[in-house]
Amino acid sequence: MVVSGSRAEWAETANRILAAMRAARPLVHNIANYVSMDVAANALLAIGASPAMVHAREEVAEFVAISGALVVNIGTLSPPWVEGMALAAQTARQLGKPWVLDPVGAGATRLRNETVNALLPHRPSIIRGNASEIMAVAGGAGVAPKGVDSAHTAEQALAFATSLAKHENCTVIATGALDIITDGRRVVKLANGSPVMAKVTALGCALSAVIGAFAAVHADSFAAGVAAVAVYGVAGEMAAEKTTGPGSYRAVFIDTLESIGADDLQQRLKIVD
Amino acid sequence: MVVSGSRAEWAETANRILAAMRAARPLVHNIANYVSMDVAANALLAIGASPAMVHAREEVAEFVAISGALVVNIGTLSPPWVEGMALAAQTARQLGKPWVLDPVGAGATRLRNETVNALLPHRPSIIRGNASEIMAVAGGAGVAPKGVDSAHTAEQALAFATSLAKHENCTVIATGALDIITDGRRVVKLANGSPVMAKVTALGCALSAVIGAFAAVHADSFAAGVAAVAVYGVAGEMAAEKTTGPGSYRAVFIDTLESIGADDLQQRLKIVD
Amino acid sequence: MVVSGSRAEWAETANRILAAMRAARPLVHNIANYVSMDVAANALLAIGASPAMVHAREEVAEFVAISGALVVNIGTLSPPWVEGMALAAQTARQLGKPWVLDPVGAGATRLRNETVNALLPHRPSIIRGNASEIMAVAGGAGVAPKGVDSAHTAEQALAFATSLAKHENCTVIATGALDIITDGRRVVKLANGSPVMAKVTALGCALSAVIGAFAAVHADSFAAGVAAVAVYGVAGEMAAEKTTGPGSYRAVFIDTLESIGADDLQQRLKIVD
Repeated sequence: MVVSGSRAEWAETANRILAAMRAARPLVHNIANYVSMDVAANALLAIGASPAMVHAREEVAEFVAISGALVVNIGTLSPPWVEGMALAAQTARQLGKPWVLDPVGAGATRLRNETVNALLPHRPSIIRGNASEIMAVAGGAGVAPKGVDSAHTAEQALAFATSLAKHENCTVIATGALDIITDGRRVVKLANGSPVMAKVTALGCALSAVIGAFAAVHADSFAAGVAAVAVYGVAGEMAAEKTTGPGSYRAVFIDTLESIGADDLQQRLKIVD
Repeated sequence: MVVSGSRAEWAETANRILAAMRAARPLVHNIANYVSMDVAANALLAIGASPAMVHAREEVAEFVAISGALVVNIGTLSPPWVEGMALAAQTARQLGKPWVLDPVGAGATRLRNETVNALLPHRPSIIRGNASEIMAVAGGAGVAPKGVDSAHTAEQALAFATSLAKHENCTVIATGALDIITDGRRVVKLANGSPVMAKVTALGCALSAVIGAFAAVHADSFAAGVAAVAVYGVAGEMAAEKTTGPGSYRAVFIDTLESIGADDLQQRLKIVD
Repeated sequence: MVVSGSRAEWAETANRILAAMRAARPLVHNIANYVSMDVAANALLAIGASPAMVHAREEVAEFVAISGALVVNIGTLSPPWVEGMALAAQTARQLGKPWVLDPVGAGATRLRNETVNALLPHRPSIIRGNASEIMAVAGGAGVAPKGVDSAHTAEQALAFATSLAKHENCTVIATGALDIITDGRRVVKLANGSPVMAKVTALGCALSAVIGAFAAVHADSFAAGVAAVAVYGVAGEMAAEKTTGPGSYRAVFIDTLESIGADDLQQRLKIVD
């Protein structure tokens, strides 16, 4: 496994992809869950992308075609939505557009596991979840995660993430106190963010949406993933210095996604060996 | 009717159940409405519980089984959701898990009345609504509430709440300027909160979710209900001292749900005879 | 085309309709999209109306009957919702209640265009969208808008808005840096607001909801539309003076919708010739 790139190099890369994304302002097609739609849309707008939420099988294929990336989040599932997700993912694959899978609550119910199994053949570019979800998708543990929270650390999930990335030939991102990004060959571990982020609903889902925006403008999904997680984590850390409670934090975090720039990344990015 | 417990005793009890809930961090399974999902999830996270939103009949039974409590909110109804609600409520009853019914807009349409009638046989542990909704559920008035607002005071609803609690053998909570909690035998009236809470959407729904978290860790639904309403109302009052507009208020209220503790309850809880 | 009314006259009119709306506190029935429900409900509560979100064909007709106005937003479509929208719009027309159409993403997919075509025969009182959406509805350009953003200025859309208003015999509102309100005979152009509003999701949808509240209490849809856009734009401008980032802005904007009054309108309303 190659730990690729120094701290300064990744800060530079993250900033370059961020700037390219802001310049391109990609349309990001989300099939989000009901809880995360608002904060994910606001995170995408703040960071500089253009969000859309479109889920019906009657229109997802057309919408994927005009979008820069697709993000599929299985948080609040029902069979009609699963149909829309599968058709959208299939279309993204066929058109060569990057797509991100956020397997919320994978392992908790049969419907979630079946949905993940139905989506994986459409080859996601990136899978982003907490450690438990990544472990469940990897089929490694059969653990039932506690709601949408993570019952395992990202570090424990590294082996699962790597296996999954190799098996699915994609980038896998397991987030938590430590964020792991791997394509099965390369790995980067980031240690920014703040514990308060776990106290605000759907910030993980919103990160998946932001990853989609970065992937829309950068062909290497691994680098796009590292860049998005780096920007998001540094913004999360900066916001935590300005506010304490989770209600105020959410607003300040969105503000910070808009204002974050090269200096913040250079000064704050934390890479762990 | 027994007015049970002094102000100091209830402040002590509320704090004890709050502390137990924060220590247990129960998974609360919500079948929420689309409007309230975000704020309910954030309220649960802030107060110290673990929220999940799961509605499809294909997975609700499995999810109830791993949850500490179920909260069913009929705010944005459609037939597939009603099926999920009924199955989830039935499962909660069968497994002996507490469940809370929030009959949003009961009395306004036939679908709402029919849904309430379909859910009541599954024996909710707690029913929480505004006075109009409680009166509609009690079948006492045939009043059509004005949207989700309350057209009657909670005090006027006391007779209906008591009858309903006796008939359904559950705890009934009618909230408003005055909050009434009764199990048909005991009653407590609380007078905390702030008028600004009625200017923020879904804070009633979020209270129902918080009640679920308290009921998950305390077998006496009546005491759990008093404790949850006490904590929520005191937090609401504290937040109103720090901000004026409803937009700012929402963030500060969420912050206060996280920080509220024993001293706040002891100093501020208001019980009305 | 008649440019009707001076700046001072419109400020006075806007304030009069605002005061009437606050006094009446109309129930506004929204068939909103999943993303906008929260912010639209909060905007309605803050400005002084009573929001409800009801979408199922099983209950929309009953709910229109007890509401002051209907607002239909096609942002997150699916066939069951389209059925609810059509039945609600038909009922509003039959009962002589004002209804507002927000054609989010019109032009982007066949489902959206078909839905607009299915709703127009029920004769909306007001159609509100960004310039691209208005142009798409007018069938003038066949442009595919980029997500929910506007790819054209409102000024360029004036010809389309006027044609559409005449053809549908309704008021058309195209919002952007410049807001155009026309009933095909009269036109008003307003220049309040702030660029930061485009960085907060669903503020356009929430404006449509607020327009519904104004139309509920004022029979002239054109004047109601001008008044609502005037109040909303002035509030948007005031909020932008108090905060910079989009996360903080949203809370302050909601606060301002609650506090805005006659003096603000008289001092700040900007009418463009």
